[in-house]
Amino acid sequence: MSIAASEDLSARLTRALGDCAAAVTEHMDGAISRAGGPSPRLMAAMRHAALAGGKRLRPFLVIESAALFGVARTAALPAAAALECVHCYSLVHDDLPAMDDDDLRRGQPTVHRAFDEATAILAGDGLLTLAFEILAREDAGPDAHARITLVAGLARAAGAGGMVGGQMLDLAAEGRFAAGARGTPTAGEIEHLQALKTGALLRYACEAGAVLGGASAAERASLDTYARAIGRAFQIADDLLDVEGDAGEVGKAVGKDAAAGKATLVDLMGVPGARAELARLVEEARTALAGFGSKATLLAEAANFIANRRN
Amino acid sequence: MSIAASEDLSARLTRALGDCAAAVTEHMDGAISRAGGPSPRLMAAMRHAALAGGKRLRPFLVIESAALFGVARTAALPAAAALECVHCYSLVHDDLPAMDDDDLRRGQPTVHRAFDEATAILAGDGLLTLAFEILAREDAGPDAHARITLVAGLARAAGAGGMVGGQMLDLAAEGRFAAGARGTPTAGEIEHLQALKTGALLRYACEAGAVLGGASAAERASLDTYARAIGRAFQIADDLLDVEGDAGEVGKAVGKDAAAGKATLVDLMGVPGARAELARLVEEARTALAGFGSKATLLAEAANFIANRRN
Repeated sequence: MSIAASEDLSARLTRALGDCAAAVTEHMDGAISRAGGPSPRLMAAMRHAALAGGKRLRPFLVIESAALFGVARTAALPAAAALECVHCYSLVHDDLPAMDDDDLRRGQPTVHRAFDEATAILAGDGLLTLAFEILAREDAGPDAHARITLVAGLARAAGAGGMVGGQMLDLAAEGRFAAGARGTPTAGEIEHLQALKTGALLRYACEAGAVLGGASAAERASLDTYARAIGRAFQIADDLLDVEGDAGEVGKAVGKDAAAGKATLVDLMGVPGARAELARLVEEARTALAGFGSKATLLAEAANFIANRRN
Repeated sequence: MSIAASEDLSARLTRALGDCAAAVTEHMDGAISRAGGPSPRLMAAMRHAALAGGKRLRPFLVIESAALFGVARTAALPAAAALECVHCYSLVHDDLPAMDDDDLRRGQPTVHRAFDEATAILAGDGLLTLAFEILAREDAGPDAHARITLVAGLARAAGAGGMVGGQMLDLAAEGRFAAGARGTPTAGEIEHLQALKTGALLRYACEAGAVLGGASAAERASLDTYARAIGRAFQIADDLLDVEGDAGEVGKAVGKDAAAGKATLVDLMGVPGARAELARLVEEARTALAGFGSKATLLAEAANFIANRRN
């Protein structure tokens, strides 16, 4: 591909991400309003958590995966918004003082800093619950069977066997619960916890697109290979940003892994090794999409974007 | 009714509650195992929260409401267990230091005391998510439409417009977020927050039974009248226990409302007034069940039990 074509593609992806983000944010805003809670403070905290920026990468993956099968964006929006609610709740709870104790998120004060801890706990609980309310609505899928399949998949991806389980392993890797000495985790252990903590929701994003699109088993498997590769790339890029990034640009605190004494894949592979692994994963992700032809152009470009992002 | 017949009924209810509790606990245990999380500590915390006692009143209401329509207990168990997971998660988060800061629950150390705060937050998140995983499983309802209806109802009852919203109002009633002076809440305001905080899940219990049983609109309305009455009775009885109960018997700290400066209906009505209101609510609940005949005997007795419980 020529440099000009590549730049054009990067611009197309940026525009598509922006369009998707605007549509998803609007859908989430409407869903929070419909939830109609009696506490203005709680609703404000949920909005702070859900509507204040973010790349909306997971919703983009839902919408673009569904589009491979001809599903219109409006039909994929509820599943996309539900997944983003889960992602946002997880950030609110991860940022709590008892967890990662972060003051800054997406360049804004975290929910417990802008409000208080109790409100942040409940706002997170409210967003997680809202995700399932969104998926259960009649506009959330072509039929009840598709909707319940989306519920089952999201619950598995987000729960103790998925994201929440990965978050718990991550805290353990920081030595939080060590009664005695803590061994340095192996590369395999780090990959396992990251596959759960961040990988499970990214895989679900593509799975949701496949469910909405009525994908074949082979198509699902291809999308899942893509999703696993970008999930790993996402985490390595995140670790590189933590080592090399600037807090102002990244929008959250950096250098936290080292401060927490937490081993990352970048520690184990070194920065040049991590960059080589990123390039390999981007290639793996793009290859997995080959069977979808030109319909998958933006998903393929998203792999590049994930690997090379600056925030 | 003669005293002998009444005693017999009370014994039947006690036995039925015990049988139900055993079956629900077994189902929850199996669901936690199936979730198959990678962190033994997280799984242990979820078991601590979910399996250590509790009256299992909400599951009993699901099962008995469904039984009015001939639904077998095994067919109602998934919905019953899912609801209890939500109830247990809410207790774990309510007990956190940033919320009610309780050390004792069901006579055991609370999850954050037995483990730690981060683990308690994640165990609660895991149980809430597990509830939806249970409801989405193929054994959780007669068909996909019933299951997605159960998901929608549970999400509404548990979320920002239901239980979580009520919990937020409850914290506000303690003056947590007051920038300046705080007015004493009116009886209407207290009833509203309690209808959300504890009432929403009790109403959902009966609603779930009606969904599973394919109830008519009139049957649903009768069950909902029953559920609202026992919900109010439940809260007044709880407030009386907080005033009059003994921590050892109740299984959690008492006198907390007064310590928190929190107005309750018992404050506003006085103890004799509260007892009269309880009797009125029991009668209202029993009257609502009249159309179901003798099939509703245990549900009617449950209203008595709720109003007169000692823990």
